[in-house]
Amino acid sequence: MQISRRDFNYGLALSLGWWPLFRRFPPQEQLRIDLYRLMGHLLSLASFGKNPQGGVSRVAYSDADKLGREYVLILMKTAQLDVTIDAAGNLIGRRNGSDHNLKPLLIGSHIDSVPEGGNYDGVVGSLGAIEVAQTLLENNVTLRHPLEVVIFQNEEGGLIGSRAMDGELTEKELELVSRSGKTIRDGIKFIGGDPNKLSEVRRNKGDIAAYVELHIEQGSTLDTEKINIGIVEGIVGINWWDVTIEGFANHAGTTAMNNRQDALLAAAKFIEAVNRVVTSVPGRQVGTVGRISALPGAPNVIPGKVVLSLELRDLDAAKINLLYEKIRAEAQAIAQASRTKFDFKEINVNIPAPTDPRVRSVISEAARELGLSTKPMPSGAGHDAQDMARLGPVGMIFVPSVGGISHSPKEFSKPSDIANGANVLLHTLLKLDKQSV
Amino acid sequence: MQISRRDFNYGLALSLGWWPLFRRFPPQEQLRIDLYRLMGHLLSLASFGKNPQGGVSRVAYSDADKLGREYVLILMKTAQLDVTIDAAGNLIGRRNGSDHNLKPLLIGSHIDSVPEGGNYDGVVGSLGAIEVAQTLLENNVTLRHPLEVVIFQNEEGGLIGSRAMDGELTEKELELVSRSGKTIRDGIKFIGGDPNKLSEVRRNKGDIAAYVELHIEQGSTLDTEKINIGIVEGIVGINWWDVTIEGFANHAGTTAMNNRQDALLAAAKFIEAVNRVVTSVPGRQVGTVGRISALPGAPNVIPGKVVLSLELRDLDAAKINLLYEKIRAEAQAIAQASRTKFDFKEINVNIPAPTDPRVRSVISEAARELGLSTKPMPSGAGHDAQDMARLGPVGMIFVPSVGGISHSPKEFSKPSDIANGANVLLHTLLKLDKQSV
Repeated sequence: MQISRRDFNYGLALSLGWWPLFRRFPPQEQLRIDLYRLMGHLLSLASFGKNPQGGVSRVAYSDADKLGREYVLILMKTAQLDVTIDAAGNLIGRRNGSDHNLKPLLIGSHIDSVPEGGNYDGVVGSLGAIEVAQTLLENNVTLRHPLEVVIFQNEEGGLIGSRAMDGELTEKELELVSRSGKTIRDGIKFIGGDPNKLSEVRRNKGDIAAYVELHIEQGSTLDTEKINIGIVEGIVGINWWDVTIEGFANHAGTTAMNNRQDALLAAAKFIEAVNRVVTSVPGRQVGTVGRISALPGAPNVIPGKVVLSLELRDLDAAKINLLYEKIRAEAQAIAQASRTKFDFKEINVNIPAPTDPRVRSVISEAARELGLSTKPMPSGAGHDAQDMARLGPVGMIFVPSVGGISHSPKEFSKPSDIANGANVLLHTLLKLDKQSV
Repeated sequence: MQISRRDFNYGLALSLGWWPLFRRFPPQEQLRIDLYRLMGHLLSLASFGKNPQGGVSRVAYSDADKLGREYVLILMKTAQLDVTIDAAGNLIGRRNGSDHNLKPLLIGSHIDSVPEGGNYDGVVGSLGAIEVAQTLLENNVTLRHPLEVVIFQNEEGGLIGSRAMDGELTEKELELVSRSGKTIRDGIKFIGGDPNKLSEVRRNKGDIAAYVELHIEQGSTLDTEKINIGIVEGIVGINWWDVTIEGFANHAGTTAMNNRQDALLAAAKFIEAVNRVVTSVPGRQVGTVGRISALPGAPNVIPGKVVLSLELRDLDAAKINLLYEKIRAEAQAIAQASRTKFDFKEINVNIPAPTDPRVRSVISEAARELGLSTKPMPSGAGHDAQDMARLGPVGMIFVPSVGGISHSPKEFSKPSDIANGANVLLHTLLKLDKQSV
């Protein structure tokens, strides 16, 4: 066996612990994240809150969430990030840049899950961002901008961490009980924040150079069309109403068919109408009736009252309004024909949050240079990025979800797609660092 | 003031307590029940389990039920009935007939109610039957047949008292928890029965000469058509299935409309199909979806699973089967179009119970002689009479329900209609007594 001079030097250096000094760093455009390490971290994090039947239940403020955060904190420290837990409970790992006058570039996501959720939603972006920081460290790259890796707390329970950063979290909201059973106030304390000092975490418009989030698509577009990377055009607006339908409860045996005011039959026609209206115009809008209750709810009583949820989502708020008006008109017609009464109560409105065109084109360029196919698309799901959009330019990178399954133990993204996403995040960051002021 | 000889005699007899001896009894065809007394009893019974918002909650085996039964027992004793509580907890008031070889004629109903029920369902027939016995007593009428006034226990919770008389109550059923919170076994003990001696109450086919039950219609046919008396052709068969629809639960924001397997949308089409099929053929059949649950049941998740109840009722079991087959075919088509799966599970079947043609014609004759209009009709609701039909000929007399409202505090029947019904019951009994062997 012949040993080259170079191999000998490397071996010597390694054995002496001097290896970094001798290492030849590749040029920046050749930098790649380490997929084996990233997948190792992902599998390790999956053990915190693991369900017997697969997937995780790592709801915010649970013991599993707290332990998962402690693990992630170790990974951040390993990447030599300067880690703090802010008053809202967000984990922030900072790395100084060469130009102290520049605002920070932010990358990150969340690690909390829905009950019986999967191992990819939020996790890919969180561990991907830490992997990017680790890659910068190992390759001796110093950015011009400060870098912040942010792991937002309680994304699934209403974007709590990122909304605190926007200064939007109200006192009243702090008293709401989260899925963990704790109030949000107690939850923030539980994970090391201080709910009385939320004003400290508040940032203002212009405080960030940019925020880029890597995330699984959670839909099936990329998987179906075999596209590597989704470039998110914006996070859709979400309008949610509760619809109450009043009929008349009566005996199912003694009330003739033509004499009924069946609230559930009216609800059935309404559910069909929602589907018909939403699919009647081109575009990627969605409309869902996900929750329903019929009262009194006995097999032998005609339902007198139904309450159901109506949710509409689109990138364009005007389109949501248009669909809503059409659905109201359909409801009016159903009410008249069935002698029932419809009442719509607005429960929640999230306005659409467009991403930044410049960040989008940087993501596109990074992906192209990596040889990856891309597709512009809306994000049908809410993300912390929509709150960050109030503070500065944001971008989101989607990777394929197999079968479009999400919020389920069956959620899965291929390692190769995760590697692609993390590499696009890395190069987007490097490019933004050169451009941003 | 002049006092006639007759008035003087009556006054003298009354003051001496000998009035009955002097009274001239009217001929039997002129006998009438005393509406004021009957309404007094009805209003008094309404106080046991009275709801603050009106109506009663006198569910079987509750304290209100027990007190109501004690009140009714007093009324039966006042009518000089020989009262026993049978092992099943039914109240039975017996009056001897002149011919000891004859089987008894039975009249009665129930006084238990649904939760938040009304003051007429069961009560009109129960107090009407006692009023008939009281009228016979006061008019010195001795029937050929023994008379039994039966107040069946727990009709609303599954015809428990009458099914015990059929010998159909199983050991397993005794352990079921009733709406009172007590098991049926404990409930029977609570009201004075003995669940270990149910075999004693069992009667066989031929043990009764006839059973006639007065009841409110609970539907709106008589009220709408301004008919005095409904002559029940039979008690409809009731088939109840639970239908499970399996789709695929997914994220409501990220799953495109054409990519969904929405179990609730499929359920909506199914509910419409049930209504369409049931109303597609002539007749008085009814079909109802009264209960529905959609899982996971969040506004932002496409329902992956729906469970709903399907109930079909008709006098003709073959028609129920025909409708069911049509509904299954519709479900199959919906399943294919929506990529969902339907599963039907039979929960309960009550076969139709026709009334006796001879008893029907006697009721018709009695009503005609009282100058009342009649209409033959099915009973869409279940009644104790359907169990008595296994023991001998039965008949049912319906009186109008205002607006067809039942199982509700708004349940109401006019006093004049109650009087009509009780008088028809009285004369039906007198006629049957002459005919029956």
